[in-house]
Amino acid sequence: MSTAEPRRVIATVCLSGTLEDKLAAAAAAGFDGVEIFENDLIASAAAPAEIRQRCADLGLTVDLYQPFRDFESVPPELLRANLRRAERKFDVMEQLGADLVLVCSTVSPDAVDDDELAAEQLRLLAERAAARGMRVAYEALAWGRFVNTYEHSWRIVRRADHPALGVCLDSFHVLSRGGDPALIRTIPGEKLFFLQLADAPRLDMDVLQWSRHHRLFPGQGSFDLQTFIGNVLSTGYAGPLSLEVFNDVFRQADPKPAAVDAMRSLRLLEEQLGFPVAEPAPRLSGHAFVELAVDRESGARIAGTLAALGFEATGEHGSKPVRLWEQGGARVLLNAKSETPGSAEIGALAVESADPSSSALRAEAMHAPILPRTRGPEEANLASVAAPDGTEVFFCGAGSGSWLADFAGAGAAPVPGLGITGIDHVALTQPFDHFDEATLFYRSVTGLRPEPIAEYAAPFGMVRTRGVADPTGAVRLALTGTLVRRGEWAPAVRDPQHIAFACDHVLAAARTLRERGAPVLRIPDNYYDDLDARLDLGEEVLAQLRANSVLYDRDEHGEYLHVCTEMLGSRIFFELVQRIGGYAGYGVPNAPVRMAAHRRQRLAAGSG
Amino acid sequence: MSTAEPRRVIATVCLSGTLEDKLAAAAAAGFDGVEIFENDLIASAAAPAEIRQRCADLGLTVDLYQPFRDFESVPPELLRANLRRAERKFDVMEQLGADLVLVCSTVSPDAVDDDELAAEQLRLLAERAAARGMRVAYEALAWGRFVNTYEHSWRIVRRADHPALGVCLDSFHVLSRGGDPALIRTIPGEKLFFLQLADAPRLDMDVLQWSRHHRLFPGQGSFDLQTFIGNVLSTGYAGPLSLEVFNDVFRQADPKPAAVDAMRSLRLLEEQLGFPVAEPAPRLSGHAFVELAVDRESGARIAGTLAALGFEATGEHGSKPVRLWEQGGARVLLNAKSETPGSAEIGALAVESADPSSSALRAEAMHAPILPRTRGPEEANLASVAAPDGTEVFFCGAGSGSWLADFAGAGAAPVPGLGITGIDHVALTQPFDHFDEATLFYRSVTGLRPEPIAEYAAPFGMVRTRGVADPTGAVRLALTGTLVRRGEWAPAVRDPQHIAFACDHVLAAARTLRERGAPVLRIPDNYYDDLDARLDLGEEVLAQLRANSVLYDRDEHGEYLHVCTEMLGSRIFFELVQRIGGYAGYGVPNAPVRMAAHRRQRLAAGSG
Repeated sequence: MSTAEPRRVIATVCLSGTLEDKLAAAAAAGFDGVEIFENDLIASAAAPAEIRQRCADLGLTVDLYQPFRDFESVPPELLRANLRRAERKFDVMEQLGADLVLVCSTVSPDAVDDDELAAEQLRLLAERAAARGMRVAYEALAWGRFVNTYEHSWRIVRRADHPALGVCLDSFHVLSRGGDPALIRTIPGEKLFFLQLADAPRLDMDVLQWSRHHRLFPGQGSFDLQTFIGNVLSTGYAGPLSLEVFNDVFRQADPKPAAVDAMRSLRLLEEQLGFPVAEPAPRLSGHAFVELAVDRESGARIAGTLAALGFEATGEHGSKPVRLWEQGGARVLLNAKSETPGSAEIGALAVESADPSSSALRAEAMHAPILPRTRGPEEANLASVAAPDGTEVFFCGAGSGSWLADFAGAGAAPVPGLGITGIDHVALTQPFDHFDEATLFYRSVTGLRPEPIAEYAAPFGMVRTRGVADPTGAVRLALTGTLVRRGEWAPAVRDPQHIAFACDHVLAAARTLRERGAPVLRIPDNYYDDLDARLDLGEEVLAQLRANSVLYDRDEHGEYLHVCTEMLGSRIFFELVQRIGGYAGYGVPNAPVRMAAHRRQRLAAGSG
Repeated sequence: MSTAEPRRVIATVCLSGTLEDKLAAAAAAGFDGVEIFENDLIASAAAPAEIRQRCADLGLTVDLYQPFRDFESVPPELLRANLRRAERKFDVMEQLGADLVLVCSTVSPDAVDDDELAAEQLRLLAERAAARGMRVAYEALAWGRFVNTYEHSWRIVRRADHPALGVCLDSFHVLSRGGDPALIRTIPGEKLFFLQLADAPRLDMDVLQWSRHHRLFPGQGSFDLQTFIGNVLSTGYAGPLSLEVFNDVFRQADPKPAAVDAMRSLRLLEEQLGFPVAEPAPRLSGHAFVELAVDRESGARIAGTLAALGFEATGEHGSKPVRLWEQGGARVLLNAKSETPGSAEIGALAVESADPSSSALRAEAMHAPILPRTRGPEEANLASVAAPDGTEVFFCGAGSGSWLADFAGAGAAPVPGLGITGIDHVALTQPFDHFDEATLFYRSVTGLRPEPIAEYAAPFGMVRTRGVADPTGAVRLALTGTLVRRGEWAPAVRDPQHIAFACDHVLAAARTLRERGAPVLRIPDNYYDDLDARLDLGEEVLAQLRANSVLYDRDEHGEYLHVCTEMLGSRIFFELVQRIGGYAGYGVPNAPVRMAAHRRQRLAAGSG
């Protein structure tokens, strides 16, 4: 396999905005070129020659003009009209500086099922193109009327036998139909004129709708793009890797981060293909700490709750209003930097890396924004990057790394507390536009592996949760988002976040918390009545769970006990979780009950 | 057919919020009863007996408890667990005051394909229920593992032969599979225990996903519910009509208007079934006027543009800061009531009804909120209702109705102007949560007929447009909404609205507008180059369109010429449209070009 980096191209249709917005975003994210989607050009007030200049100024090539539809296999009078149409588009391409046009297999009711006619007419088109120094890439749409497999498009291209006519392969059109990409190897590389890449979730639906609304960037869906592209590269294909993703969310999202997300997806893909992108992600061995940004009011409430949970304040930062709380391997930093009354949210999370410097280098190679760090002269040099939701992600050395030295009094032996041993997971609600981006970010930047998506009905709308975790479960993040962006009616806590502490004895801990008067979230009797009906846990266990508001879940691998605190500020709460056996989830079936309970808490406090 | 009105019930799963929110919304919308969805109860802190009391206080009965899953066709030890589970749920139902439980056909991997076993075990369950004065309604899920048609569920119920066991029919489960509802007539009415209703758009996708995310209220989708329910009622079924609609948008929308939308859907359905709901919607014969709420700044700009369009100010309202502008049959009221600088939006639209009083009575019967009207002693008594987006809808007498008498100087002969003959359509952007509600509102309240939905990619996201029109095309509204709710990145004009005036000679009018220096929206050359490539209209026509920024569309019925003004305030512009032949659309293919042009206008004005 070649080690030269491939050219990276993005179709303007992937991004939101006017053509000018899209070009600027693509260039800023580091793409080498673009496919110009015709409708983007048509709506632009800039002449094609001006777009060409704009692209040149931005360092972008125009690699493809697309799509040209419903050309082939038509009666003579329609052929004349189609050739006229093509010449007009060649005029546009000439000014645009594009020499390759995408022709999609026909869906026209006027076309006939005749490969020989298709080849003959495409050859005519290729002759016209060649006369102007252009080429034609013929693509089989998955829903093409007669031609809907790449094998079929290749048969026609081979039959037409013109140097200016080749095949365009689109991973969606091939893989959505369950096509066998191995046959790609039978196509000579020089006849593969273009390669379009899209991933997608596995959906059982009309392929046209699936394609137009639900495509994803590579690594965000479930297609095996690595094998697919491996076959393409084995032919000697040396053209660009080009993203063509139709997605309803990306289409209305800020194009700048969307283009970075796209670029990151390509980098990850290149790495999987064996290109030298970055050092492999160093192994992560645990959560080093979570830092909460709080104001004085929520800070006091959270400190009190941490104390009730058995945490001990073990240090003060040398130069900032930050206090360290510890228990077992769990560390929470309270940073009293917020000035919004009641505000409390996760400002940063830190993971322990086997090689923090390599982690930082990899993050940079994966287009994670490296954050500037203001340090005092004595302070630890921790590299950090910004996740799509703005959370700062630090890479620390394993164990009680050097960052602890920033805290005076640090190193004091943690108290036994409530049996909390560490941070089990951190739950982060993702902004609607950035859910898939967030998964890809953690996967590509930190090497955490995405788990399956769980979708469920919560009291105020459909929600999805997806874990990203290291293979041993030492680092877990639970990413949560809504299926439909919330509107005005959203009385639930907006975008709640929580830290889940691992605890060996959740029932006992919950009992202690109750005795200490800690703000444990009250779970209603109806929940326990249902638990009893469903699972028959026995009267004694049930009574204990009920008395202490402990939630329960089980699957084929094990059991899960968890207890939540009330909201301790604008959007933060804590959870104690106990995994028994091989349970690897996050208690998702109980999430709606927890959300309704937090709403009640807010209503009772008069702020719901 | 019975003329007694059926009882109206709604499943709590249709609405967003906690159980308490849902009950309040259902009662406020006038429902008689509810199906309690189990998860709503489980998350509630109110004991079942308290919910019972709450319902009684609200005038709601509890008609069904649901769902009870995966009961039948299981090995003996699982049967014991399932019966135990059922008894616990019967305990809940007893406190809740519910005597009917929904049992869904099994999807359990532990079940076996054995109708006799299913019947035997369901009979056992029915005996247990009967012992407590309860009954069991067995429903075939469309994706049931063995039982997935209503015919099959009925065979099992018949075989079980117990008076406390009957069938629950759900229109979605029957019609999604293309089942034949005529066989329903073979089921004795007293064995039909419950009837659940849902509509849905015709989607080619996995039926479980379709059901869980895309159901709609009756009249919002494409199912033939009239025939379906007709068959049910012919059996003598006298139970309630109950809505069970799982929809991602409704699940996160304000439950109060959603419940009204649900009720309206039921009323329309009852009318179609022949129940005496309301007088038929009187015939609408045209747009009487559109009222724009403007401030001084936008008012001046709009008045100037109306003058350039050839409108004449023909009257002043006797008691309000409202001026009437007329040309041909087109009337625009400028109401200078806004105090927000630059603000301009449609405050009201008025349609000419063959019988305005009947129109108002029908609107009231269809749960349209009748608006209070402050009138001077001499003023016309116009009934008006609020559409879901807040627009005030008036019903006027046909022709120059009595409302014109409110305007001093009214009746002056309109000037010839630019050949504008009337209002062709009014285009209203619908709030995301209310798109389907709006269509149903206009259909049920005014009798306008919904046209097919057009979906298209606009510069800042996917958009859909749906017309509602009277059969002659005299009254048309174009409703537009986004497929995904817009987020922070939304540089387009927010929720644009426009009035489209019918004009006999759009090209000539556009030329005059240009000569008059009117703020015509500039359409880019790229658009005309594409038009030329696609349609070959001839050089002369193309040159005229291009020179005057006239947009062009055609379909199999005719042609459409239209020209737009710039935005004349926060979200208003005008359009002149000319329909040639039987063209019945709204120029949707040109909408993205227009949107990009309006964005450019805003950017050029430094407010984009």
